[in-house]
Amino acid sequence: MKKLFASIITIGDELLIGQVIDTNSAFIAQELNKIGVPVKHRLAVGDGYDDIWNALDEESKHAAIILITGGLGPTADDITKPLLCKYFGGNMILDEPTLEHVKYLFEKVFNRQGPLLERNRKQAEVPDVATVLKNEVGTAPGLLFEKNGTIFIAMPGVPFEMKWITTNHVIPIIKEKFETGFIEHRTLLTQGIGESILAELLQDWEEEIPAHIKLAYLPNHGMVRLRLTGNSFDKEALNNELDNQFAQVKILVKDYLITDEDIPMEQVVAKLLKAKKQTLATAESCTGGHIASLFTQHAGASNFFTGTVVCYDNRIKTELLGVPREILTTVGAVSEETVKLMAANIIKLMGTDYSIAVSGIMGPGGATDEKPVGQVWIAVANKQSVIAKQFNFRYDRTRNIHFTAINAINLLRKLILEQPI
Amino acid sequence: MKKLFASIITIGDELLIGQVIDTNSAFIAQELNKIGVPVKHRLAVGDGYDDIWNALDEESKHAAIILITGGLGPTADDITKPLLCKYFGGNMILDEPTLEHVKYLFEKVFNRQGPLLERNRKQAEVPDVATVLKNEVGTAPGLLFEKNGTIFIAMPGVPFEMKWITTNHVIPIIKEKFETGFIEHRTLLTQGIGESILAELLQDWEEEIPAHIKLAYLPNHGMVRLRLTGNSFDKEALNNELDNQFAQVKILVKDYLITDEDIPMEQVVAKLLKAKKQTLATAESCTGGHIASLFTQHAGASNFFTGTVVCYDNRIKTELLGVPREILTTVGAVSEETVKLMAANIIKLMGTDYSIAVSGIMGPGGATDEKPVGQVWIAVANKQSVIAKQFNFRYDRTRNIHFTAINAINLLRKLILEQPI
Repeated sequence: MKKLFASIITIGDELLIGQVIDTNSAFIAQELNKIGVPVKHRLAVGDGYDDIWNALDEESKHAAIILITGGLGPTADDITKPLLCKYFGGNMILDEPTLEHVKYLFEKVFNRQGPLLERNRKQAEVPDVATVLKNEVGTAPGLLFEKNGTIFIAMPGVPFEMKWITTNHVIPIIKEKFETGFIEHRTLLTQGIGESILAELLQDWEEEIPAHIKLAYLPNHGMVRLRLTGNSFDKEALNNELDNQFAQVKILVKDYLITDEDIPMEQVVAKLLKAKKQTLATAESCTGGHIASLFTQHAGASNFFTGTVVCYDNRIKTELLGVPREILTTVGAVSEETVKLMAANIIKLMGTDYSIAVSGIMGPGGATDEKPVGQVWIAVANKQSVIAKQFNFRYDRTRNIHFTAINAINLLRKLILEQPI
Repeated sequence: MKKLFASIITIGDELLIGQVIDTNSAFIAQELNKIGVPVKHRLAVGDGYDDIWNALDEESKHAAIILITGGLGPTADDITKPLLCKYFGGNMILDEPTLEHVKYLFEKVFNRQGPLLERNRKQAEVPDVATVLKNEVGTAPGLLFEKNGTIFIAMPGVPFEMKWITTNHVIPIIKEKFETGFIEHRTLLTQGIGESILAELLQDWEEEIPAHIKLAYLPNHGMVRLRLTGNSFDKEALNNELDNQFAQVKILVKDYLITDEDIPMEQVVAKLLKAKKQTLATAESCTGGHIASLFTQHAGASNFFTGTVVCYDNRIKTELLGVPREILTTVGAVSEETVKLMAANIIKLMGTDYSIAVSGIMGPGGATDEKPVGQVWIAVANKQSVIAKQFNFRYDRTRNIHFTAINAINLLRKLILEQPI
């Protein structure tokens, strides 16, 4: 029997010309990971017949579980279904339950008038060698094939349909058919230390960890995430061992530790604020609402997040946030004075405990001789104090916006914890 | 000679456990596409020695250009460099220019005190069979290898370093070494028509297009993007042919056409506003700043985007946006009355020509018997009128937020164009 591995094949020319970013395979990988199934490959191929066929041949050499997304729709570029039918030596037949479901969706959910189109009726045709996996949230069902102990499951590429089928069919099927081990992770986030120095700190410890536990360094946004991963068939022993090793890492990096959970920076701050039952408002110029959207993307944000003024136009800085026009015309919108006033005044305007204020030049335009692209002023405040700091990022616009947001949230974290900024 | 294809290999266990989403290979694919190089595979593999080795073997069967990212850093999980050295039969030597650059970065840019760490000095070691590609923005250089007419280029996985090396080395090298053809695209966006009906509209035309032109259907967010792709060595003839075919498509889908450019919805609206020299403000409850951040992520937003009030707390809806407390306690925050007042009042508050206002229940919490998760009210306004519409999305939180934003921006587009809503 093959060692238990999964491979994920994503199908679509749009993936190979870079028109879309593949988020599907990250989701599938996470779900497989949770049930202890390691992923061998994530492979993206185009809509070509031979390319898909060869990918199936190749990946089934490496993996006992092949998960496929894309190409199951009703248009001419969707060739996955007839291809799979031929690959597994079947014939296309009409699946009555799928036809009923397609009819139901068109009539009741999409409110479409008139008889079912032939191409939609065809969505109810399936290979007679496949097990049909009902897709409650779309017209194209999932399809399960088995060959020489390997299972192949094809799903539509539309993300929420793929997620639904993964959760409701794929994961239960794999748990039933395979004896899976356990993969467990421990992740922590450090700030204020480079990857190399961190590696020096951990070197002696790292040389001693057993082979079934791996350490990964994940640098991003000027911070380094560390991940310990272990796998075993004995879940309890594995967790004990990981807890023990993780405790040692935490001691070694304690001066730089932001969180020992695998959560982003804004969730670290959200937890601090919720625990203290305190509230936050933001006053955003250059980030244009990005800081607010980072906080509010997570459920439960309404427990601490009060609101935001995006003051993209300088007039709004004056009219809503009380930055005197003279300050804007003398020291300018990107200045210590401006962000301090923005931070102090948004607290008063929204009646919150804390605030974040940012103003900077994100590029590519807007630079002056004194203020290059990437120059940013960030202020954080509570009712007693306002602290401001200047940053110079000098990357591209997208990265400057994100770096500004992450650093602003980190400054707030330090203020809440009464750490020096 | 092999047909000219590229394969992209991304290395890192984080890709196989779904901890990070792979944006690198989308960027590389786009850049290759611009110079007429089609991508055969995008393959993600883990940090294992054999996995990387086998991926090199396998992909070099398919492609004449192999681009590799990840595993070039200074820590123990970075094994790509010694592996490539062995794969191409070389020895590691110290590269003096790289050492000078590493020293410069640590001393002048990172401001690190003390002598260079051994592990950082090692970043200047390179296989003697590689051509070193200087990395101006980081410590790990790119490495170019050649074998049997195939080129292999390894780059660090940090996105902005990878982008810098791709732009400054990879693309010029490929253009010099290979005779590349041309790949050209035409993309349009439709709204208000499903993928199947669209395919019916286009069927007769689609059957007649020549083999070197492909049509792709890309449904997302309740809209369908159509892409025509052609490749040829004769750029002018290809562009003429695509223009001609594209003109036919545009006539066929004219009733549903939002834009004939490959730009997102907010860019369509941004162009309309900039052309009219008119301005926009948003009042956001449930989207929490996401609509503002969609507009402001693009350069030039300050030409039309004035600002936003995020009123996550109902108190802010009353105090800043003038929604009477009685309305919030009777019909509620998620209601036609509330969003209409938000939309009308943000125009007055910020002095803009147009506004968007949204309020809804994004989930997973917050639902009531009358108002399920996914129920949203959206209003758009100009100085003369306010129009509101209710939507029911019922997906997960992330998708509900994004659907709300896209539909709100589309309603504004219709208002600007004086189309029925």
